[in-house]
Amino acid sequence: MTTTKDRILDASFELFRRQGLTGTGIKQILAQADAPFGSLYHHFPGGKDQLAAETIKRAGAYYGQLVAETIAEHPDVVSGIRGAFISAGEALEETGYADACPVETVALEVASTNEPLRQATAEVFDSWVAALTALLTHDGVEPTKARALAHTIISALEGAFVLARATRRTDALDACADAMASLVEAALR
Amino acid sequence: MTTTKDRILDASFELFRRQGLTGTGIKQILAQADAPFGSLYHHFPGGKDQLAAETIKRAGAYYGQLVAETIAEHPDVVSGIRGAFISAGEALEETGYADACPVETVALEVASTNEPLRQATAEVFDSWVAALTALLTHDGVEPTKARALAHTIISALEGAFVLARATRRTDALDACADAMASLVEAALR
Repeated sequence: MTTTKDRILDASFELFRRQGLTGTGIKQILAQADAPFGSLYHHFPGGKDQLAAETIKRAGAYYGQLVAETIAEHPDVVSGIRGAFISAGEALEETGYADACPVETVALEVASTNEPLRQATAEVFDSWVAALTALLTHDGVEPTKARALAHTIISALEGAFVLARATRRTDALDACADAMASLVEAALR
Repeated sequence: MTTTKDRILDASFELFRRQGLTGTGIKQILAQADAPFGSLYHHFPGGKDQLAAETIKRAGAYYGQLVAETIAEHPDVVSGIRGAFISAGEALEETGYADACPVETVALEVASTNEPLRQATAEVFDSWVAALTALLTHDGVEPTKARALAHTIISALEGAFVLARATRRTDALDACADAMASLVEAALR
C-alpha cells in the first residue's frame, strides 16, 4: 500500500523531473498526489525545501539503481555502458522527451541559489561516480583511471540528456553510447 | 554605448545562467539592468517569453564563439578541445561555480513546458554541433564521425558543468578534458 508520504514524493519526483523545482508549486504536487494540504507539513515539517531534499535523495537512489541494473543486463561492461545510453534514449523517446535524469534540472536550479539542496544533488552525483568507479574497477580498470572514466560517462549521460530533450532527437545519446563504450574498451586493454 | 535593450539582455543572460528562467522575475531583470518598467514591453512586446527567446539566441552565439576562440588559441584541435574543458573549469572556479553554460538551465526548464523556447534552445545546440562538426571535418575527421564526435564533446561539456556546479569541484571537467582529447586523437588517426 502506498502511504500519503510516498504519493507526495512520487508526485514531486515526476514534476521536478519534467518542469524543475522552481516551476513546481506545492499545490500542484499535492493535487497530483491526491493529498490534503495539511499533509505536506505533517510529513515534511521543513516544507518545500525538506520535500525537495528527500525527493532528490530518493530520485538519486532510484535512478542509480535503474542504470546499474541496465548495465548488468548486458554480458559485459562495454556493451552494458553502450546499452545504458541506448535505453535512456528509448525511454526518453517513449515519454515525448520528458523523462530523463530526475535530478539534473533541480541540480542546475539550486547550484547557486540553495546551499542545502545543492549539497543533496552533489551527494547524488558523488554516489553515482563511486558506484560506477567500483563497477569499472571490479572489471579490471585501474582505480584512478576508473574514477576519471566514471566522471566522463556520467557527464556524457547528463549532457546528452540536455541535448536530447532540447532537440527531441536521440543523436547525442547514440553518439555517446559508442564513444563511451570505446573509452571503456580502451581502459580495459 | 550600451542601449537599454542591451542592458536588459545582459541582465537576463546573467540571471538565467545562475538561477534559471522560472526563478528569475522581470522586476529583478529590470532592476539589475537599471531600466524602467515600461522599457520591457517597449523593447520586447512579447514580454518575458520574447526576452527569453532573444536571450537564449544571444547567449548561444556568444558562448559558441567563446568556446571556438578558446579552441583556436591552441596549436591543434586535440589540445584545443582539452583546453576548452580546462578553461571552462577555471572560469567556473573563479565565479564560485556560478557561471557555466548560459543556455543549459533554461533548456531543461523549458524542454517539456514551453515549445517556442524549447525550439530556441534546440537551435543553439544544433548550431554548436554544426560548428564543431565543421571544425573537426576541416582538421581531417570523416564527416559522419565528426558529427558524432561533436555531439559527444558538447554532451560531455554540458554534463560536466552539471556535476561541477553541484559538487563544486572541477573533477568532471578535468576527466572529460582528457577523455575528449583522446577521442579526437583517435578520430584523426
